[in-house]
Amino acid sequence: MRISAEELERTITKHGFRKLSLCDLGYNYLIQFRKIPEELTDLLKQKDASIVLHPVGIIRSKIEKPFLVAGEEGLKMQGDLKDAVVKIHEMPGEISNIIIYEGLDGILDGIEEYSHLVILYWAHKVPEEGRSLTRVHPMGREDIPEKGIFCTCSPARPNPVLMTVVHLKGRKGNVLEVLGLDAVDGSPVIDIKPYVKDFFPQEDVHIPEWMQRLQEEVNKGKSPNKTQS
Amino acid sequence: MRISAEELERTITKHGFRKLSLCDLGYNYLIQFRKIPEELTDLLKQKDASIVLHPVGIIRSKIEKPFLVAGEEGLKMQGDLKDAVVKIHEMPGEISNIIIYEGLDGILDGIEEYSHLVILYWAHKVPEEGRSLTRVHPMGREDIPEKGIFCTCSPARPNPVLMTVVHLKGRKGNVLEVLGLDAVDGSPVIDIKPYVKDFFPQEDVHIPEWMQRLQEEVNKGKSPNKTQS
Repeated sequence: MRISAEELERTITKHGFRKLSLCDLGYNYLIQFRKIPEELTDLLKQKDASIVLHPVGIIRSKIEKPFLVAGEEGLKMQGDLKDAVVKIHEMPGEISNIIIYEGLDGILDGIEEYSHLVILYWAHKVPEEGRSLTRVHPMGREDIPEKGIFCTCSPARPNPVLMTVVHLKGRKGNVLEVLGLDAVDGSPVIDIKPYVKDFFPQEDVHIPEWMQRLQEEVNKGKSPNKTQS
Repeated sequence: MRISAEELERTITKHGFRKLSLCDLGYNYLIQFRKIPEELTDLLKQKDASIVLHPVGIIRSKIEKPFLVAGEEGLKMQGDLKDAVVKIHEMPGEISNIIIYEGLDGILDGIEEYSHLVILYWAHKVPEEGRSLTRVHPMGREDIPEKGIFCTCSPARPNPVLMTVVHLKGRKGNVLEVLGLDAVDGSPVIDIKPYVKDFFPQEDVHIPEWMQRLQEEVNKGKSPNKTQS
């Protein structure tokens, strides 16, 4: 079997050799290589390795589609921002269900003793090309200069693992009823963690002016006015 | 090629058929099936699908090994709890580096404007069998009754994606210098998010009595006294 040059190169790197040159001789390759120092091999292996997650459940919510849609050109608000803001305001009062899959018996035992939980879930509506964005206009707002993805809450990011802290209202067997979950219906659940206030900063927290402004606009339910920005 | 009955069944379900019966005729299978309603097919496909993450960077810290080790029998504290508590107390003062891999140019642009960040990382020292634990003694403490994994901060969980909020001290190109990161050296970075206080509960938060007690013990640097529990 003839493997591709790329695959061959990946395999060589993975096994601790740095390729010096590679000549295609038809059905064979002539490779010159030298061993990579051991301390670098470990790092290279890790960079190369991908991580596989298995969803532990699914979210059922009234949010049918994401507010923000990612494409090659960046983030775009889907529909009208005013409608989105109205929906964001309704959200804290909406009950969502987190259904935990069978085969994880006991994994929720004792969870009712917490008032709040951290939910990690997969933004399953983000297209593959959304994972290669590195800079976006926050919330798709072109009046705000582009920022690095890690400075934003964009659902499109290299690994679209989203996080929300929810209020636990009740549990019926393998179903958690929660308030404040802003996940699109059908989102796969990755993890559930207890929310413990002491694990979060008790000291002063600083955020950029543009994020402060976005927060205030959403809180007031005010639509953005481009002439003011 | 003859595929196994299990594999065949998985494939059938994936493509939207429910198997009614399956007869092994030697090298062939006789299958009777009927179509699964479309609304269920989507859910089944999603449950079956796994999620692939690509690390965006690596954590360099002074923590050489995890405090808690998972095996088939549950969680065990590695070494002495007193030593661990001392280390936990030193941690907030230790600088860790988060090195972002090449090829993600611009992804950190503007990050210096935040004082705190949420770091999602992979608990790479958790063995595969640690991912099938569903109940553990919190912190490996046998004096505390077993709880569901989702009620604990156990690094061993179905998807060992860990989360810490850190204080951003500085940035040198693709390296973030942070305080308060309790990740083992070499942990792969999954995501970085801005920490915005308004996204977290402003109301009262309730946690179980056992978690409160564990917190207090760690805060006081007090070793556990089994005769009191």
